[in-house]
Amino acid sequence: MLKVGIMGVRGYTGEELLKILLRHPEVKVCCLQARVEKPELLSKLLPRFSKQTDLVCADYTPEVMAKGCDVVFLALPHTVSMEAAPKILKRGKRVIDLSADFRLKDIRLYARYYRMEHKAQALLKEAVYGLPEVYRDRIKKAHLVANPGCYPTGVLLGALPLLKKGWVQDSLFVADAKSGVTGAGRSADESLQFTEVNESFKAYRVGEHQHVPEMEQVLEESLRKKVQVVFTPHLVPINRGILSTLYFQLKRSVSTGDLVSLYQESYAKEPFVRVLPEKRFPEVKQVVQTNFCDIGVAVDAQRKSAIVVTALDNLIKGAGGQAVQNLNLLAGFGETVGF
Amino acid sequence: MLKVGIMGVRGYTGEELLKILLRHPEVKVCCLQARVEKPELLSKLLPRFSKQTDLVCADYTPEVMAKGCDVVFLALPHTVSMEAAPKILKRGKRVIDLSADFRLKDIRLYARYYRMEHKAQALLKEAVYGLPEVYRDRIKKAHLVANPGCYPTGVLLGALPLLKKGWVQDSLFVADAKSGVTGAGRSADESLQFTEVNESFKAYRVGEHQHVPEMEQVLEESLRKKVQVVFTPHLVPINRGILSTLYFQLKRSVSTGDLVSLYQESYAKEPFVRVLPEKRFPEVKQVVQTNFCDIGVAVDAQRKSAIVVTALDNLIKGAGGQAVQNLNLLAGFGETVGF
Amino acid sequence: MLKVGIMGVRGYTGEELLKILLRHPEVKVCCLQARVEKPELLSKLLPRFSKQTDLVCADYTPEVMAKGCDVVFLALPHTVSMEAAPKILKRGKRVIDLSADFRLKDIRLYARYYRMEHKAQALLKEAVYGLPEVYRDRIKKAHLVANPGCYPTGVLLGALPLLKKGWVQDSLFVADAKSGVTGAGRSADESLQFTEVNESFKAYRVGEHQHVPEMEQVLEESLRKKVQVVFTPHLVPINRGILSTLYFQLKRSVSTGDLVSLYQESYAKEPFVRVLPEKRFPEVKQVVQTNFCDIGVAVDAQRKSAIVVTALDNLIKGAGGQAVQNLNLLAGFGETVGF
Amino acid sequence: MLKVGIMGVRGYTGEELLKILLRHPEVKVCCLQARVEKPELLSKLLPRFSKQTDLVCADYTPEVMAKGCDVVFLALPHTVSMEAAPKILKRGKRVIDLSADFRLKDIRLYARYYRMEHKAQALLKEAVYGLPEVYRDRIKKAHLVANPGCYPTGVLLGALPLLKKGWVQDSLFVADAKSGVTGAGRSADESLQFTEVNESFKAYRVGEHQHVPEMEQVLEESLRKKVQVVFTPHLVPINRGILSTLYFQLKRSVSTGDLVSLYQESYAKEPFVRVLPEKRFPEVKQVVQTNFCDIGVAVDAQRKSAIVVTALDNLIKGAGGQAVQNLNLLAGFGETVGF
Repeated sequence: MLKVGIMGVRGYTGEELLKILLRHPEVKVCCLQARVEKPELLSKLLPRFSKQTDLVCADYTPEVMAKGCDVVFLALPHTVSMEAAPKILKRGKRVIDLSADFRLKDIRLYARYYRMEHKAQALLKEAVYGLPEVYRDRIKKAHLVANPGCYPTGVLLGALPLLKKGWVQDSLFVADAKSGVTGAGRSADESLQFTEVNESFKAYRVGEHQHVPEMEQVLEESLRKKVQVVFTPHLVPINRGILSTLYFQLKRSVSTGDLVSLYQESYAKEPFVRVLPEKRFPEVKQVVQTNFCDIGVAVDAQRKSAIVVTALDNLIKGAGGQAVQNLNLLAGFGETVGF
Repeated sequence: MLKVGIMGVRGYTGEELLKILLRHPEVKVCCLQARVEKPELLSKLLPRFSKQTDLVCADYTPEVMAKGCDVVFLALPHTVSMEAAPKILKRGKRVIDLSADFRLKDIRLYARYYRMEHKAQALLKEAVYGLPEVYRDRIKKAHLVANPGCYPTGVLLGALPLLKKGWVQDSLFVADAKSGVTGAGRSADESLQFTEVNESFKAYRVGEHQHVPEMEQVLEESLRKKVQVVFTPHLVPINRGILSTLYFQLKRSVSTGDLVSLYQESYAKEPFVRVLPEKRFPEVKQVVQTNFCDIGVAVDAQRKSAIVVTALDNLIKGAGGQAVQNLNLLAGFGETVGF
Repeated sequence: MLKVGIMGVRGYTGEELLKILLRHPEVKVCCLQARVEKPELLSKLLPRFSKQTDLVCADYTPEVMAKGCDVVFLALPHTVSMEAAPKILKRGKRVIDLSADFRLKDIRLYARYYRMEHKAQALLKEAVYGLPEVYRDRIKKAHLVANPGCYPTGVLLGALPLLKKGWVQDSLFVADAKSGVTGAGRSADESLQFTEVNESFKAYRVGEHQHVPEMEQVLEESLRKKVQVVFTPHLVPINRGILSTLYFQLKRSVSTGDLVSLYQESYAKEPFVRVLPEKRFPEVKQVVQTNFCDIGVAVDAQRKSAIVVTALDNLIKGAGGQAVQNLNLLAGFGETVGF
Repeated sequence: MLKVGIMGVRGYTGEELLKILLRHPEVKVCCLQARVEKPELLSKLLPRFSKQTDLVCADYTPEVMAKGCDVVFLALPHTVSMEAAPKILKRGKRVIDLSADFRLKDIRLYARYYRMEHKAQALLKEAVYGLPEVYRDRIKKAHLVANPGCYPTGVLLGALPLLKKGWVQDSLFVADAKSGVTGAGRSADESLQFTEVNESFKAYRVGEHQHVPEMEQVLEESLRKKVQVVFTPHLVPINRGILSTLYFQLKRSVSTGDLVSLYQESYAKEPFVRVLPEKRFPEVKQVVQTNFCDIGVAVDAQRKSAIVVTALDNLIKGAGGQAVQNLNLLAGFGETVGF
């Protein structure tokens, strides 16, 4: 049994990750860290886990975590992860980081979007971006996995096959994304009060979301050219799920059928990407509580446009589930074990 | 007091329209039509109105409606309106039609999108598209007003100032729209069951929605050139409200401030369009239960894109409220009376 | 035109009250108070009101409010109202207080449930409990109206006819109430975050809610005997509305028809109470955005029980609407004017 | 591996049951039945299962199901189950029936509440009511398990410890229950449309719900005396979950602490019942997606009342989860295997 631990188990991401790990037949959850004054039963902090586990939660240091675990998941806030990761890696243990701290290779972009100097630049080179559909082989050998953001996962899986194929204008595309509220994490923010969100809908951080450079970096790396993403995130009054609608300008005449075939071939062997048949499009309810990303495509021939819609659960394929998929890869388990 | 009536009072649109008209100080609601076997108290059909009105509802013919009213609102299904309207107009009474039957000037488009031959082509020429911000003067003199669709209202109000100004590529833009569930009307459709819609989110009729030719017709008429709209509607698990996010490619360098100024000037005198200051964007909750369309704008300079977000209540500014605004115009009342 | 003002316009109650007053044909809203550093356009604080009113909001003292208004509404937090009210009354102006400060006649109960000594005991005697269906005549002459709590309004309107009739055991009954989230007011409480409330349901303050002594006081005053209410409030993931289900033990054999008749007669002349026919029960959606309280009743003959269900909008009949109904009474307007 | 099958896999209950069984390490799902014209991939009927299973669904007869399975789950509509069960039992295979067909021992009650004569009376005697907390030993040996209704599960688990203890008046108590919408099953009923349910709340089948005789039968059997339940179900705008609030009259003076101790002792060894500490009450969100029933209790000493609140997921502990718990018992697996 592989020994694993979670730092930051009390957030939505940490909690969801733990739910998956507790059912995983090849791992043993050993250490749970949270900012608590004294060690507490996890079930005291998160009552959902009572009669499910006797695990205790304490404010362990990264060093203690490294001692007790083979792999440590960091479900810590951005900028906190980069202090913990080096201490664990130094002790020879592996890290899967669910924060944004090791995703961007360019520290100037990091500083600009996360308003903080990067404190562990030396690790950026070895960090592997944990999108298995793109970087599977590198993940298998990684010591530090930078688990992707929830928006980039859906946008990249939707955009890459088409951009690689060369059928569309590839300097820029539009990605209009809609996320459930857990995407914002657990915090007593007035704008996230029930009565502010319920029966409403809005765009936020228009033209300035921190996931844009992350998407553009992977696109550039994969396509060996610069691709820009005009990205607008929106807040949907649901707990979980992200749906992204992508718009491309076609360079040549292709049919919806061509597009469906392209995507089905691209993802035929992927265990967690499902391409829908013509005329069908993803729905959040079909992917919630799963590690799947569903994709539907269409061509608007008259307007020479391709439209790609993707859906996933932001807490699973967009966070904790993808982290376990990455664990399966780097530990040599079957990729779908535990789901 | 102007005598008005509603045909099709039992749908969401008819009900909302009636709510507004009952509070309107210059009109008297005289005749309410619905498909009932025998005359019934309205409050029996729609219990929300008990102790509010003693009005009776019957399955009146258009001729009877014309007799009893100065202006008749048609909140009938598409293809039913076009049979009723001529009969009322022939008796010299005016019609405000909330269906799609008199919006499209091109009967081939009508036949294609509504799957029905048009039966009142003669009236298409005199029908005035009831978007006051564009056609106010013509509405004042109209006998037949084609009240706009809910999606076109939000998209057109958001797109026109920018397209007219010439700052953007104007052959095509993307409109990603999200609507509450009342947009689909009152019907026992399995896909609109609570458990299917709640906690989910999806795109629908991708690349083939019937509101696209309506938008493109008004754009072409206003700009005297063909403009294409790549349009995807989505279903949000809320009762009311539409938010549309529009994406344009800039032809020249402009700032967000320039955009805000352009929109504020364009709509300065409009009683029902509100342009938000820089960095603020519309939220459905701010427009629900009102006749306002709110607009927020931003420039993503690095990606040479302009993003325009609009929000309105699909049952009010997107239907019944706009119909009463049109009534105010053609009857010579103050445009905001009754709101 | 009667000049009115609101202290505490920024909470849900104040905002809803203002919406009603702005449409009221017999009043002019003159002064709006909120805790702001400097005078601000109301539409800056509550953007929903832009292009609707040019009113300014300032942190006016009660004395200034009294100077500018004939009647002042207090939508202030509990314990703040009792400092403002005397200062306004002293200047000969009338007060409609929407807080709990003048509802309880027994200052020991006040101290126990609101954890604060009462600071304006002298006014308790003249304060009239603003439930028009019970105290209409006294409200007409009142200088200080204590507008009822949202839960007591629904429970009292549901319980009084049956208790007065003497058909049921009248020492105790069960009231199981369910409220939308605006009932908790506008505050950044973590337990009221969207993700905590949405797709959940819970009871709260079981056996200790502050509205219990308020209900029991009115029951005792009306029935001249002590009646106990076993009351449990619950939180429903909706914005507005309260539904209360009351359970009584029958002392004699009566039918559902008898009960319906009793309630219909009791409320026949009431403009804002609607009794539903046999087999029909209230739904929150029928009363939301209205000043109605709907009531449905049934007898479970085998279990000798009477069940009474009531529904109202907590922000309207449960707060701002009832306050305007009270204003209409004390100002001598028609009771339904403005609705 | 135990071979199991499901008849009626396409309803909410069947689907949820299948989700649990697919993860169960000791069983192999062999046959899935649904009303389909020809055999279809399950993932065609329920797209959520694509890339998860290659199982095929066909309209198998009960005889065919019996041939292929050791245990057959019936997730069929009421009145259909009683035709299928005998045919499977006759072939020596075991049945866990999730419908109401074998719950009531009294066929007159069945006829009255389900409006149908019972067609398999001979089996009623051997059918075991599948509430493990009450009938564990009998379930282990059962050939036909009548899986409990969702409401009775919550009400019975909440009421039995207190009624058995003798602290309360035991001839009658009030059970006010609130259920999510999946409780109504998958059907295109207009009253279950999103816009009818969302932002609303209502009581239904007041005084006449078919689960009342089921509760009363188990209470009478357990307590050897007649106990009546005044039961009102309500519809909450959430997908899943039931919360029940029970009200008892105390016969003697007990404290909340006494009640908590009583319940904690009663359920100390139960793997799926959790009793909360003093002052804490169940929330639907804590039990959704689990097989737990959470219970919180309080005494309102002044009103000599005991209040018991229970919560469970109607599709899991209230249906499919409890069915698997029963399977575990009768197959001799660990009771919590697969959860």
